[in-house]
Amino acid sequence: MKDGIPLEIDVVEASASKIGSVDFDNLIFGNIFTDHMMVCDYVNGEWQAPSIQPYGPIQLEPSAKVFHYGQAIFEGMKAFKDDEDQVWLFRPEANFERFNRSSKRLAIPEFPKDMFFEGLETLLNLDREWIKKGFGNSLYIRPFVIATEPGVSASPSKTYKFMIICSPAKAYYSGEVRVVFAEKFSRAADGGVGYAKAAGNYGAQFYPTNLAKEEGFQQIVWTDANTHEYLEEAGTMNIFFRVGNKLITAPTSDRILDGVTRKSVITLAEEFNIPVEVRRVKVQEIVEAAEKGELKEIFGAGTAATINPVKGFGHAGKKFELPEQEDSYASFFKSKLMAIQYNKTEDKFGWRYAVKER
Amino acid sequence: MKDGIPLEIDVVEASASKIGSVDFDNLIFGNIFTDHMMVCDYVNGEWQAPSIQPYGPIQLEPSAKVFHYGQAIFEGMKAFKDDEDQVWLFRPEANFERFNRSSKRLAIPEFPKDMFFEGLETLLNLDREWIKKGFGNSLYIRPFVIATEPGVSASPSKTYKFMIICSPAKAYYSGEVRVVFAEKFSRAADGGVGYAKAAGNYGAQFYPTNLAKEEGFQQIVWTDANTHEYLEEAGTMNIFFRVGNKLITAPTSDRILDGVTRKSVITLAEEFNIPVEVRRVKVQEIVEAAEKGELKEIFGAGTAATINPVKGFGHAGKKFELPEQEDSYASFFKSKLMAIQYNKTEDKFGWRYAVKER
Ligand SMILES: Cc1ncc(COP(=O)(O)O)c(C=O)c1O
Ligand SMILES: Cc1ncc(COP(=O)(O)O)c(C=O)c1O
Repeated sequence: MKDGIPLEIDVVEASASKIGSVDFDNLIFGNIFTDHMMVCDYVNGEWQAPSIQPYGPIQLEPSAKVFHYGQAIFEGMKAFKDDEDQVWLFRPEANFERFNRSSKRLAIPEFPKDMFFEGLETLLNLDREWIKKGFGNSLYIRPFVIATEPGVSASPSKTYKFMIICSPAKAYYSGEVRVVFAEKFSRAADGGVGYAKAAGNYGAQFYPTNLAKEEGFQQIVWTDANTHEYLEEAGTMNIFFRVGNKLITAPTSDRILDGVTRKSVITLAEEFNIPVEVRRVKVQEIVEAAEKGELKEIFGAGTAATINPVKGFGHAGKKFELPEQEDSYASFFKSKLMAIQYNKTEDKFGWRYAVKER
Repeated sequence: MKDGIPLEIDVVEASASKIGSVDFDNLIFGNIFTDHMMVCDYVNGEWQAPSIQPYGPIQLEPSAKVFHYGQAIFEGMKAFKDDEDQVWLFRPEANFERFNRSSKRLAIPEFPKDMFFEGLETLLNLDREWIKKGFGNSLYIRPFVIATEPGVSASPSKTYKFMIICSPAKAYYSGEVRVVFAEKFSRAADGGVGYAKAAGNYGAQFYPTNLAKEEGFQQIVWTDANTHEYLEEAGTMNIFFRVGNKLITAPTSDRILDGVTRKSVITLAEEFNIPVEVRRVKVQEIVEAAEKGELKEIFGAGTAATINPVKGFGHAGKKFELPEQEDSYASFFKSKLMAIQYNKTEDKFGWRYAVKER
């Protein structure tokens, strides 16, 4: 809606659906995309009318600024289907707001909220069949913007392409996850773009993560670039530590992504009287807690991974395994979150967002 | 050449040249591209046979990793034509080596040296007419690699596209350049990708640079992210300070690009007995030198900008103007460098690289 008038979204439907060829029981994360995508171009200083088109390739000049200067940001959200075939999003306004915070930091024009939701909901309705019922099934939604202006002078693009593409999803990690605490490499600088979902933040982690994998760790828990003494977050998840019965996580900052899952966990912890401390987390403190047997759990929190238990960690050449917990916080939060996401429980905090059929 | 056998480069010539439509006297940096481009794909764990094709758009999946994770790096070089129509590159091996250092840090497979030079020289020969004679004219050469694999899981791409595109160039900056010393934002973290020509490093600077422009500064001189007490480099140039008759520049590190122009200036300074100190440069020291009238010059050094005098700087809300210098170091180094680049003088250090006609 714009000034009370429904937004016109031009829809070109795919001539045939690919859905029949998809093996929904054996999905690899982010590999297959639905039949449609949303596209909106920024030209002449304005976002133009958005459209929904059949999913397919795009054409760009080889000099398009996204290729040279990484002027690109994205979001990650999920849609869930309940037993009555109703489709739900989880706190999508938080993603939308972060989308524009990221855009601003990358000098990308902010995207209008009405277009975002109108386009997204039209798209989800068209591809509704791709959202499967059942715990663990979801549709991963990837809104993003790329700088399209041709030209290799290092300055902001004058044109952009906004898109939403969607991918049916099950689990993000296929096996057990162990992490290593960063000692040399780092993810973000103070005064940098760490808090934004800037494309360049991710590619920059691949090489250190490859090195970590060679040591048997699937992910790195980044530490502050300055001293490497404080634990911050992982590549695609915020990180929680359970010491005794206390939950600890780093505060957000300009280096750390303000995760939607993270803040939902904090709210749930407070609701269920789980003591939670949002403060700087010393590497030393966690290592000592592990040595004393007080470190009960580490888990990651993120849209793609949901709540991901961490089986062990490495630091300074030492490896630590974490014991199975009977009363695992990770399982507790995961089930609480999923109950809300799949409409199995009341929605006390107003986190569910219904995608109405149209 | 590979094992002594000349590399086969498939060449598809453009049916017509665009060169007639180009106003070479009024070029805007990086806006116009020559008739051809080099393309090479990485598939099945190997760089395939490169080709030269007419310059034109490329097609990618919207889920291509470069759009989402900024897995992309580039280089910037220039070709110069002398009075005898001979085409020269300036220290291209240094760019090639840095290209692969950048690739490695971004988990991109390194590119073979023989393919790089064979392709580049074939391309330059085809587009030889685009390289104009005369001081200040050049062809800006942009080799780059982008991650092309479709899929939104945050992991390195399995496929890549290497390209070289070329743009006829005159000056990079069209007007006077004033800089501001960073106090809040930063460009790179210790242990990060600052030393690489990673795409994401550049887009991340656009927003702070826009803010600087509003204050009347064209560029930011980045300081260390940790304390903002030490001057590092600008967005596309290394920075030199002349205090009295002494030249000072920051050492390279994992935050600072190892600029080819920078190291050439250092070598020339040594040759011409200009005292040069490569060491950490305190903001305070430069501000005090300016206040005492001892700061004679600031200039930037980079391929695109060559040697760029800085007319003034800002710090902590104060603005400083730099006096005109009769015996300007900036002019001195610029003319020395250009004399080598345009084959007007002997090439004592072996920096010139002849692009043979074929
Ligand atoms: C760097 C980073 N940290 C944390 C998260 C988790 O954030 P959210 O819970 O909003 O998905 C993500 C993924 O979005 C991320 O990319
Ligand atoms: C960040 C940065 N610093 C410095 C430079 C200057 O390096 P060079 O002299 O090799 O062009 C460049 C440009 O290449 C750059 O991008």
